Amino acid sequence: MTFPTLSSLLFRRPLVAPAAASTATSLTRRAFHNTPLKMSAKLKPAARVSGRRQDVWSIINEAAAASPKQPIVNMGQGFFGYNPPDFILNAAKQALDKVDCNQYSPTRGRPRLKQAISDAYAPHWGRKLNPDTEITITTGANEGMLSAFMAFIEEGDEVIIFEPFFDQYISNIEMPGGKIVYVPMHPPKEGGTKTLSAAEWTIDFDELERAITPKTKMLVLNTPHNPVGKVYSREELQKIADLCLKNQIIILSDEVYDRLFYVPFTRIATLSPEVEKITLTVGSAGKNFYATGWRVGWLMGPPDLIQYVAAAHTRICYSSVSPLQEACAIGFEQAEKENFWSTCVTDMQAKMRRFNAIWDELGLPYSEPEGGYFVMANLAKVTLPDGYPFPPHVADRQRDFKLAWFLIQELGVAAIPPSEFYTDENAHIVADYLRFAVCKDDKILEEAKERLRGLKKYIQQ
Amino acid sequence: MTFPTLSSLLFRRPLVAPAAASTATSLTRRAFHNTPLKMSAKLKPAARVSGRRQDVWSIINEAAAASPKQPIVNMGQGFFGYNPPDFILNAAKQALDKVDCNQYSPTRGRPRLKQAISDAYAPHWGRKLNPDTEITITTGANEGMLSAFMAFIEEGDEVIIFEPFFDQYISNIEMPGGKIVYVPMHPPKEGGTKTLSAAEWTIDFDELERAITPKTKMLVLNTPHNPVGKVYSREELQKIADLCLKNQIIILSDEVYDRLFYVPFTRIATLSPEVEKITLTVGSAGKNFYATGWRVGWLMGPPDLIQYVAAAHTRICYSSVSPLQEACAIGFEQAEKENFWSTCVTDMQAKMRRFNAIWDELGLPYSEPEGGYFVMANLAKVTLPDGYPFPPHVADRQRDFKLAWFLIQELGVAAIPPSEFYTDENAHIVADYLRFAVCKDDKILEEAKERLRGLKKYIQQ
Repeated sequence: MTFPTLSSLLFRRPLVAPAAASTATSLTRRAFHNTPLKMSAKLKPAARVSGRRQDVWSIINEAAAASPKQPIVNMGQGFFGYNPPDFILNAAKQALDKVDCNQYSPTRGRPRLKQAISDAYAPHWGRKLNPDTEITITTGANEGMLSAFMAFIEEGDEVIIFEPFFDQYISNIEMPGGKIVYVPMHPPKEGGTKTLSAAEWTIDFDELERAITPKTKMLVLNTPHNPVGKVYSREELQKIADLCLKNQIIILSDEVYDRLFYVPFTRIATLSPEVEKITLTVGSAGKNFYATGWRVGWLMGPPDLIQYVAAAHTRICYSSVSPLQEACAIGFEQAEKENFWSTCVTDMQAKMRRFNAIWDELGLPYSEPEGGYFVMANLAKVTLPDGYPFPPHVADRQRDFKLAWFLIQELGVAAIPPSEFYTDENAHIVADYLRFAVCKDDKILEEAKERLRGLKKYIQQ
Repeated sequence: MTFPTLSSLLFRRPLVAPAAASTATSLTRRAFHNTPLKMSAKLKPAARVSGRRQDVWSIINEAAAASPKQPIVNMGQGFFGYNPPDFILNAAKQALDKVDCNQYSPTRGRPRLKQAISDAYAPHWGRKLNPDTEITITTGANEGMLSAFMAFIEEGDEVIIFEPFFDQYISNIEMPGGKIVYVPMHPPKEGGTKTLSAAEWTIDFDELERAITPKTKMLVLNTPHNPVGKVYSREELQKIADLCLKNQIIILSDEVYDRLFYVPFTRIATLSPEVEKITLTVGSAGKNFYATGWRVGWLMGPPDLIQYVAAAHTRICYSSVSPLQEACAIGFEQAEKENFWSTCVTDMQAKMRRFNAIWDELGLPYSEPEGGYFVMANLAKVTLPDGYPFPPHVADRQRDFKLAWFLIQELGVAAIPPSEFYTDENAHIVADYLRFAVCKDDKILEEAKERLRGLKKYIQQ
């Protein structure tokens, strides 16, 4: 088996997640191997970018390119397989005709978008956020979170994150010198045999409390959760909030899937005015409006925190993309009238049901998502053939990497091994799981199901 | 005279540069005053964002809002007063209809855009850059430069920049812990009495050589230069390159105005294969295509350097805005056929001539730009009235701040005082200059000229 270069991969296989192709990504938390530098030592890169362990995205891309089952059905990366609705696309096209919509926006974002966000979130917040002081626009949620870390983290400050985590958190925290403290989420004990709600993934609150030190500056929360699909309950959020209030820890709540919840969804900032004062909430137009390539996000929170996030954002990106900010403003203004938010939920739930039927059919359990567009299937019952030829960099990872490689090679379906989103120490926790993104056209979901039927012969019931 | 809050300013005065309104921007190199923190000390911001000295953009905005001459004619910030050409706008609209153009792009940029850049730059480079390894797309030139600093600067590394500098350089270098070493450009001695070419602004190469230490990691060059309008000559570039080669210093060449030159323009990377090996060249779709709000930029350079810039960009923004990348690709593909590049030069030169006629009429000298869209006028001959009421934060700055304030209050024309782009030590060098951006509609330029005729009574010939 030969492995093509990444660049050849990227451009010949459109079904393979293209964004996954950076040659060196974020997992600097692990030991890494520097490639020998051919250039002058004086020209060498900074440590923050010189980690070279192959990340999950490039491994999955490589597997996809090497697979005989072309084209691959890609359920790996969480990009949408369909377009934003017409009322938003038309808004973008109209914005392109306006001179001011093609030039710099204010560094904190376009006034119309901030107002629209204030209005759209009011029913959830119980009041209207001040668009000038409590909302700031960022270049996607990703750069928004980096801006928050840059705003508050000094060298040696600690940040608590839950495993599994979104992998960009790691480099975003390390860039300003933060130290990451990991607290694992625990899957349900019977996850290998029974389909249970994603609510059954739990935090050990004693474990969380022990992770807090006088240096703990921030805690990152993600609800609805990627990849688990859990929507934290009000009671869980209250416990987290109480610990953060007691220790004056800033809560950075990544709520980018905040329009995709299938059980009641509580925003931690809304628990009390005291909690609101220490909370930054992150939103994403890419996730809200099916447009992950638009790079429009926002942070909401008290003026004392938001002003520094905005200052950091100014230093990082200066301002964010103007015509698409304007389109998002119109998106928020018209979403209710277009019945868009309820359509989002209905459509995604239908996709979840449609796709997950294959697991019921195969007798494989999964975590029933409470929100978002990912599902974690448990493949403990799948027996991989003895002596199957995994490449060395897959063979030395957890079983989920082998499962992912096998599915791509044998069935032509790409999914993501979630142990990538745990530390090495805790990676075993999800060794039997794979993450599938269902935000794809129904015919892609049906094709995936048809291919996954090929798993039958490897399953012992 | 009362000063409105910044936020009130921002949204009521669309003619005032909107992007200028961050409450705290980049000039951390100066002493700053922290506002008293009302919040818990544990929630305090990082030093990198807590500098609060008022920056030029907010001072100019404030002046504009306080002026009786509404609406202000804004020749301050360098955004275009007109739209990108139709063939590019149409390309953007068509991209919005394509599913993959609305989702994540590869972290290094869309293949079509990188190929188009490779093709478009080939005549200037003498060869086609490899789109996979020698080009990487960033979220505007600004985040591209930050990515370069993040890729190579470790705590304590030194970076040489020339004064006057683009103010974002400062925070971008300081974020990864870099130390800035300033080398001033010197205006022509007769600049106060004679209109001379911007070429007459010079570097003292002995001064430059003395600024180099064993810790010098990078040198930032900007040609065509903002705000001076100088296009560095081949001989000057060769001297800079020789010093950088000898000391193995990475050259970061900010060439965002690379389609707006009125004298022969040399790209430092093209001097020799050796120089190319140590050079990163920065480009900007915002500047090339009249769309500063699109946030699409690129870096070009050797694979050994570009790979780390791309890795840093991935950690900062993940990927850049997809539909506008696609539009820029088509922009590059069709620009020659549309005769766009030569139209850019012809149109901007005509605007320069149109606007600068007012200085000839008033008998005020200026630096005749060799490139870009800024002109530096010298107002040494303007006498400000005795006892004019400048607010304290303007009164304690160089004379150019007072000139800018005065022009806004008395004539309703906004320009930028360039001493903001010097260290305090060297700020006196440009105390008589103001920077005007001419990338505005002709009728705005005529209105500005009409207002500037009001200067006559303050000028002693």
